[in-house]
This record gives sequence, structure tokens and C-alpha cells, in this order.
Amino acid sequence: MQLANSVQLTFLGGMAEVGKNIFVLETEDDLVVIDFGLGFPDESQPGVDVVLPDVAYLKERRDKIRGIFITHGHEDHIGALPYLWSEVRAPIFATRLTAGLITGKMREVKLDRDIDLRVFDPDDHPVLAAGAMTIEPFRVTHSIPDAVGFGITTPAGLIVHTSDFKFDPTPVDNKPTDYATLEAFAERGVKLLISDCVHVETVGETLSERVVGETYEQVFAQAPGRIIVATFASLIARIQQVIDVAGSQGRKVATLGRSLQNNVRIAQELGYLTDPNSVLVDARDAHKLAEDKIVFIVTGSQGEPMAVLSRIANRDHHEIQIHDRDTVIVSASPIPGNETSVYRIIDQLFHQGAEVIYSAIARVHVSGHASGDELRRMIGLVKPEHVLPTHGEYRHLALYADLARELGYDDDHIHKVGPGDVVTIFSERVSVTDRIPTGRIFVEGRSMNTVDEEMLSHRSNISQEGLITVAVAIDLEAGQVVGDPQIASVGVSIHLEKPPLDEMKIALRESLEKMLEQGTVSLERIENRIRSVTASYVYRGHRRRPRIQPIVLLVSPVT
Amino acid sequence: MQLANSVQLTFLGGMAEVGKNIFVLETEDDLVVIDFGLGFPDESQPGVDVVLPDVAYLKERRDKIRGIFITHGHEDHIGALPYLWSEVRAPIFATRLTAGLITGKMREVKLDRDIDLRVFDPDDHPVLAAGAMTIEPFRVTHSIPDAVGFGITTPAGLIVHTSDFKFDPTPVDNKPTDYATLEAFAERGVKLLISDCVHVETVGETLSERVVGETYEQVFAQAPGRIIVATFASLIARIQQVIDVAGSQGRKVATLGRSLQNNVRIAQELGYLTDPNSVLVDARDAHKLAEDKIVFIVTGSQGEPMAVLSRIANRDHHEIQIHDRDTVIVSASPIPGNETSVYRIIDQLFHQGAEVIYSAIARVHVSGHASGDELRRMIGLVKPEHVLPTHGEYRHLALYADLARELGYDDDHIHKVGPGDVVTIFSERVSVTDRIPTGRIFVEGRSMNTVDEEMLSHRSNISQEGLITVAVAIDLEAGQVVGDPQIASVGVSIHLEKPPLDEMKIALRESLEKMLEQGTVSLERIENRIRSVTASYVYRGHRRRPRIQPIVLLVSPVT
Repeated sequence: MQLANSVQLTFLGGMAEVGKNIFVLETEDDLVVIDFGLGFPDESQPGVDVVLPDVAYLKERRDKIRGIFITHGHEDHIGALPYLWSEVRAPIFATRLTAGLITGKMREVKLDRDIDLRVFDPDDHPVLAAGAMTIEPFRVTHSIPDAVGFGITTPAGLIVHTSDFKFDPTPVDNKPTDYATLEAFAERGVKLLISDCVHVETVGETLSERVVGETYEQVFAQAPGRIIVATFASLIARIQQVIDVAGSQGRKVATLGRSLQNNVRIAQELGYLTDPNSVLVDARDAHKLAEDKIVFIVTGSQGEPMAVLSRIANRDHHEIQIHDRDTVIVSASPIPGNETSVYRIIDQLFHQGAEVIYSAIARVHVSGHASGDELRRMIGLVKPEHVLPTHGEYRHLALYADLARELGYDDDHIHKVGPGDVVTIFSERVSVTDRIPTGRIFVEGRSMNTVDEEMLSHRSNISQEGLITVAVAIDLEAGQVVGDPQIASVGVSIHLEKPPLDEMKIALRESLEKMLEQGTVSLERIENRIRSVTASYVYRGHRRRPRIQPIVLLVSPVT
Repeated sequence: MQLANSVQLTFLGGMAEVGKNIFVLETEDDLVVIDFGLGFPDESQPGVDVVLPDVAYLKERRDKIRGIFITHGHEDHIGALPYLWSEVRAPIFATRLTAGLITGKMREVKLDRDIDLRVFDPDDHPVLAAGAMTIEPFRVTHSIPDAVGFGITTPAGLIVHTSDFKFDPTPVDNKPTDYATLEAFAERGVKLLISDCVHVETVGETLSERVVGETYEQVFAQAPGRIIVATFASLIARIQQVIDVAGSQGRKVATLGRSLQNNVRIAQELGYLTDPNSVLVDARDAHKLAEDKIVFIVTGSQGEPMAVLSRIANRDHHEIQIHDRDTVIVSASPIPGNETSVYRIIDQLFHQGAEVIYSAIARVHVSGHASGDELRRMIGLVKPEHVLPTHGEYRHLALYADLARELGYDDDHIHKVGPGDVVTIFSERVSVTDRIPTGRIFVEGRSMNTVDEEMLSHRSNISQEGLITVAVAIDLEAGQVVGDPQIASVGVSIHLEKPPLDEMKIALRESLEKMLEQGTVSLERIENRIRSVTASYVYRGHRRRPRIQPIVLLVSPVT
């Protein structure tokens, strides 16, 4: 359904989930894409490295796409570009730092010369044309510099998209959220506010990023030897604070980890990271300094197994071995799902003698997202007719709806929508008018689509109970089992006292031969018989239900 | 090493881990066991239901064991009894509620008539004989009634073991921690304090359990329809508060979930749970009441997949289907590692329309463990010469050591020990003098020892990359591959374009036949060749490294 003076809004990702942010605004002739992010797998997706949104919807509408407008340079907003930009090949609009990060990513897949990347500066207050729509970026504070939201003028009215934001009153780059533009939008009249909601559980206001710098000052001053700071590669503001505090205390700083080094290089080249006292040194030179003269910034604050911090904790890093004068700062909060691996690393570091400072005991991390009071303040500033929370799980959407209700919005003006819901913004109302299928693409290493949901479910099942493979050679002409059935197992013991394996093999052979005697049988029937005989033996003996994999080799008499 | 006037202390579990608490105090002729708990698996132990300590050390010393002294009725302190008590068959000493819970567990494995269970009342200040040692229990407040610590008089001096404790000033059962006895111990002179430390990360004091009741009052008063409270089956004090608040607001209470119903029955029989207004009703009767007249208490607050709350959230519970007048209170904090499953359930409940109240947004849970100030207060009360933290991961042990250092203890008087470390308490010093091997036993369903660490590691590997099975029938006499090799896969796609499966089968056959032509070959060499040919094909085509399971069927010519 598409009516004049209306606009359709569809979330291909980032709705009722945290990750792979991408949504679409669409009129009859024009389409804009906001963000192009990836997601990370949960525990039901073992072996998967990243999860991508399905952009089939965009591919079908390629001719309508006026641009991909990026809010900021985090993976969950730009990470799908290297994998899927080729499917749409639309121009990409971004701020300077974000563009630098995108270029870096596209270079790795040799697409940096193919993309049409258009840099805008939000301080110029540009009005970017997108067919029947126009896009006005405005600065927001977040945990990466050069982050913006968008005011999107559509035939159905003005839509304000906050993207990821907080109202940091003292941002490290001294560039606060652009209140003036938000107020100007309010004066023009805002039809719909699309708001970040992921930190709605927290009351009050999110602390300023500068609080982390204050903690660094205290911890650095007391550290007797080396300092190792683990944080997100994209947290440029935090890296800046490490550089500043280290400089003021006479320490040098070295970075370890590829993504971190890439981001630092890009941010330095573009002027988003400054090193006035030349404290940044190469890691090789750092080791020549006295231990109380050095800070290492490393990757792996989320417990990623191949990152630097994990390797240090596992005593598997060739440059850094922990000893009892080391201070390690894990300058991040564990993202839900990562707690076990993060705490395992913290425990290992303590065990090796380090003093470890982490978010449960010190202010070494603050969120980049608005807490309750800031979400209310955004509504108060923008004064939208309708609100629609995004960038959250169902609980965040529901709590944001509660918050809007307290501010006087009724259920016709609060829109809790799901993935793929098509929200039509008419001049007089906003409602869900359709639903499109949304999918996800699993990436393992560099391969897309090598696994699907069914295979992932098989992987999980095997990891719970193990697998028994039973191979039988059968001569169909002679109606005989040839040789001995062979049994192999993974992740499950079949070498236990009861039932004896030989007994099971004999039973299996007898059962199959009886079946073959009765005439022609299908491969499927033979496989099913192998499954049932094996399963019942294993269950009787061990009360376990491992997966059974039958393999039938059809052999003919050797002549 | 065993000297006169010394005593050995060994942690068979519960040290540098949270779970399976069990330790041993031992003189030349006598041995006492403190607690007999189980642990829960972490994500590296898929398919495992519970983890038990290895009690081989106790079995070898069965004749010396004077008793198993239990501090309280939580699974991590009593849960190994049904599985492993038969290995030691020593008398069990416990308070009345704890004894009731133990009897319930032992009945399930038909051992309730075998055990020699001796009930003590801490209010009588008994002095329990244990050979050369005596045990004096003292009340502590925790998240289950009738919890105690022990003062243990040994030839090397008085040892005070706090067990799990907090200083709840207003416990729901009105039985506070026994300050007088702790002070009396201090006057007698305490050689060593063995202290809980798991909540050391939190500053200040842990809130009283009564705070949860206050939240219940507010939430119950506002709930328009049914209320569903999920909590731990052992949290008798919380169940009492649900009953009290429900009663005062004219609601009835029904319990769902076997472990919860068992505990409620035992606690009621023994007088630890009172229902003066007869609000407890059978679940079948509850459904006949108006929705605003009922509270359900259910199991599954940790996201356990088979428990009631999970089944409700999955729309898989035959009695309760969520609708938008329901209020669900998840009255627990996710234990580290359970966050993902707990939040998934909360999201599903919100999605189905319920109002969900959980620990991130309301005071519906308080810890049963002492925070920093309480841990300091315990040291101040007991005035021990030496301190030794237990019931924590390495980070908790290290932070407790920091706390003790701040109170003036030096490193010779703070003992951070590991699992299996033998700590000898001499009259003049305390030190680690030996280490014994400690193990763990994995339980799947009702089977012990069906999996070992290696099998668990195979399960995890397959869940990451999948498994390819390649079966080949070989006639060794003829030196030939018989029939077609068969290939099957689980959790990985081998049906992709490249390389074609047929091509791989041909290459495999050729490679094996070349090998066979060269003379007699071992089964192992054939299997290795299957592995290497398959692995290299799969890697070349897909850059994946699934596990390869070769199966060789030796067949003879059919005559």
C-alpha cells in the first residue's frame, strides 16, 4: 500500500534486537536507507562470527535508493557494508570520521574505489537531497566522535531519528548534542520521533565520558608498574583520555590489536585523535621503557577469544606476560552474553597477580546511550506527535512505551513495532499496514550463507548430547550386510560396560538382514532401522539420546 | 605432612569457583567435612546438568570422618549428597530445616533411611564432638532460614567459618546473625577466619530481604490482573513475603514447579513457612479465582529451559498463557552466565503483553551475601589472626585480600589458596604445605561419568564448525575401495557449489587405492588419509575446518 503524502518505514534490522541496525524510509518513487549494520551471534548460533541483515528488500528496489545515510561508525551501524553494499551500490553519506572508518573497511574487501562516499559536516547544517525527502543531520554525543541523528523531511511530515545518543554535557571532543537544531525541528513540528531506547532501564542520566578519565587519573597515579587498558577499538574518546592522562603522568602509550591500531591511525589522520605530547609509541619501543613509564591499550574488552586481552590472560601473548606489578583496566561493561568470558579473563589476570580494575568495582566505563531522564528530555525537546522506540530488545521497547505514556502519549501515538513491520506515516495517523519477511545471514570467517538455522540447531543438539555414527556396508543384490558395522562417536561415550558394543552390532546386523530378506528395501528404511536399533540400545544402556548418523555403503560383490 | 597440634584444611570444591562447596579439616586421627555441594556447568560443558566434586580423597579416609557438617540447605552446599554420600556414609549434622531438605533429596534416591542425620539447634549453642575437634554452630542470616557458620576448635586453635552470610538487620524470620557467639569466639582468640567473599565487589551493605517485601507491596497493589512471581525454590523468606503481602491484599497464592512445591511443603511442615490466613491454594483451584485475586509463585527465575517460567514464556505451559493484564515479577538476579536466557524470557513476556518487573528496574531481589562493609565488620567482630576467603572466583579472593590488607593484615596472614591446596594451620603460622589433585564429576540426567573433559571439548568443537563423516568400504585383500565413499554432514553444508562432492569422492578413492597398491597399510593410515583429503577439499572450497570423522568398513568379497 502506498498513498500520496504518506511514507513507509520498515526496520530490516535493529528492531526488537540490539545489533544490525538498518531501516528504510520510502515514498512512491524514493527510498533512503538509514545505517547498514551487522550483529553479533548469540549462544544459539555457535561458530557464527557475524550476523547480517537480509537486504533482498533493498535489492528489489535498487533503482529507488537515493542513498545510505550513516549515523556513526560503530559496527552495528556500518559493519554490513563490506559484505552487502555490492547488492545495492547506492551512494553512502557520512561524517568525516565515519567515512574514514568505512573506507578502511571497504579497503579490506577491495571495494574502497567502488563506493560513492559523500562526506557531510553537520556543523554546516546541510540539507541532503534524497528525491521526495531531504535529510538534515544534527550532532549527537555518543561513545564515538562525529555521530549524528537525522531530521528527515518527508511528504508525511518531519521525522526525527535520534540514532544512538546521550546528552553528554562534557564530551571529550567538546562537541555536544545539537540542541538548537532539535528545538528548530520542534518549531517546524515533528510528526514522529524514532528514538534510541537501549539504556531505558537506567534511571537518571548517563555519566559523562569524562568520568572515565577521572578514574584513569587516580588509577594511573597509583599503578606501580605497567598499565594495560582494554577497551573497544571504536572508543576514540577513551583512547584520547588514555593518551592525555598518560602524557600528564609521564607515561608513553602503545596500542596492541589490529582493529585498534587501524582506528587510531584513521582517527589521527583525520584529526579526531590528538597526541600533542607525542606519547604514542610503537609497541616494540614500549618494551624498552621502564615499566612505570608505559600504558598499553589493547583489544579484547569483551572477552573475544582471539583478541589481545584474552591472549594475555591465557599466557598466550608473546609480548606481554602478566606479573604482580601490572595493573589491568578493563574499560568496558560486558555486553549481555559476554559476562562469562569477560569474568573468566578478569579471574585469570587476578590469578596471575595483576591488580584488575573493572566496571563492577570502579567507574572505568560509561554507556554511550541515554538513560531514562535523557530519553524524556529528547521527547521534551522535539515535541513529536508520535514516538517509536528502536535499537532495543522487546523489554526496552516496552519500558520506553511506559515512559512515553507517563509523558502523556496514548497508545495511538506510541508505536512498538516488530522486525519487518511496515509502518505507514499518513498525515493524520501512523500505523502498521503490512509486514515484510526479514531474514538474517550468518557469516563464518569470510563465508556468507554456509550455515542456516537448521544446521545451527543441529550443532547445538550435538553439543548437548554428542553424536554416534553407524556405518553399514550392504550388498543389496545378495541381501546381506557385508563386513562388520562400524561405530564411531563424538562427544559421547559408547565404550561403557552396558550394553556391550558387540551385542549391539550383532543385533543391528540381524535386524537389517531380516529386513533385507523380506525383499527390496529403500535406503531410507535401512537408515531408519539403523537409527532405531542404535538409539534404543544407547537409551537402554545409558539413558542418553545422542544424535544418530546412519551411513549405508552399497557394495557389490568384488569380482 | 601431619604434625602434632596442627590441622590441615583442604578445599575439594568451592575455592576459586562459585559452586560445589566442600572442604575438609583434618588432624592425625580425625576428619570433618564441611558441606557437600554441587556446582552448575558453564558454557564449556554443554549437555551437563550438574557438576560434582571428586570425593576420592574422602573415600580413602573414610574411617577418619567424624561427620559431614552442613551450613545450610542450598544446592551448592547439600546437592552432592544424593550422588556421593554413599561413597563416605558418614553421619550428617544439620539444622532442622536443612535436615528436612536433605531428607527430601535423599528420599528421591531412596537413601533417606540409610543416612544418619543428626539435627542440632543453634539456639541451644551445642558443642558437637568430632574426635580431636569440636564444632560450635552459630546462626547467620542468608537467603534461606536456619543457616549457620561454625566455630571449629582444633589442636591448632579456633577456626571460624562464616559460610554464606550477610548481616541482615531485619531478617524475615526475625533470627539475626549471632553476634554474641562471634564476640565470644573473639575473646577466646581466633586463629583463622574462613570467610564468604562472593559479594566483595559491592560497597556498603547488602539490603535486607525485607526490601523485597516492600517492592511486592507496591507492585501487587498496582497489578490489574494475575501476578506471577518467579524465584528460587529455596528462597523460603521470599515465599513467606509473597504469602504475607498477598494475604494483606486479599489474594491467594499457588505454587507451580516441583522443587518449589517440595520446598514449600517441607518448610511448612517444619514451621519455617507460615500461612496464618490460609492463602496457599492448589493451582487447580487458583484458576477458578478472579485474576486480581491470585498470585502464582513459579520456578525458573534463572531461565532454566524446563522450568515453569521458561515454559510460560515459550507459550508452552498448559495452565498459564500470558495476556496484557498479567504482571510478572522475576525476583532474582541472573547468575553470571544466565543473563542471555533470563533476558530472552523477559523479552518474550513483554512481547506477549505482560508488565515485567525485574532486578534491573526494581528492588525485587537482594543478595544473600555480605558486601564490603559487612565483610569488614565480620573481621572486626571475630578479630582473627589469619583470614582466608572462600566461596568466590579468583577476583573475589583477590578483592577480599585487598580489603583485609586495608584492615592491617599482611600477606603472611591473608591466605589466597587454590583448589586442592593443603593449608596447614600450625600454632605459630598458617601455610600451604601440599596440593592434592581435585577433580570434578559431570552428571547428565541421572548418569555420572558419562562424559569427560575431552568429550566436552569435542562437543564444543563440533558446535563451532560442524562435522563431516566419510565412510569408505575397503577390501584389503583385493586392495580396493568397494562401492562409493559415503559422506554425511551435521551442522555444516557440504552441498555447496565448490568443490563438487563427486570430485572429492573420486579424489578420495584414487588416493586410497594408490595407497593400497603400495602394500599392506594400517587402518590408522587409511583413516588419516581420509581426514587429510576431505579436510583439504573442504578448506579449499569453503575455508572451513569442520571435524572429520573417518569410518572404514573392512569388507571381504561376498562369496
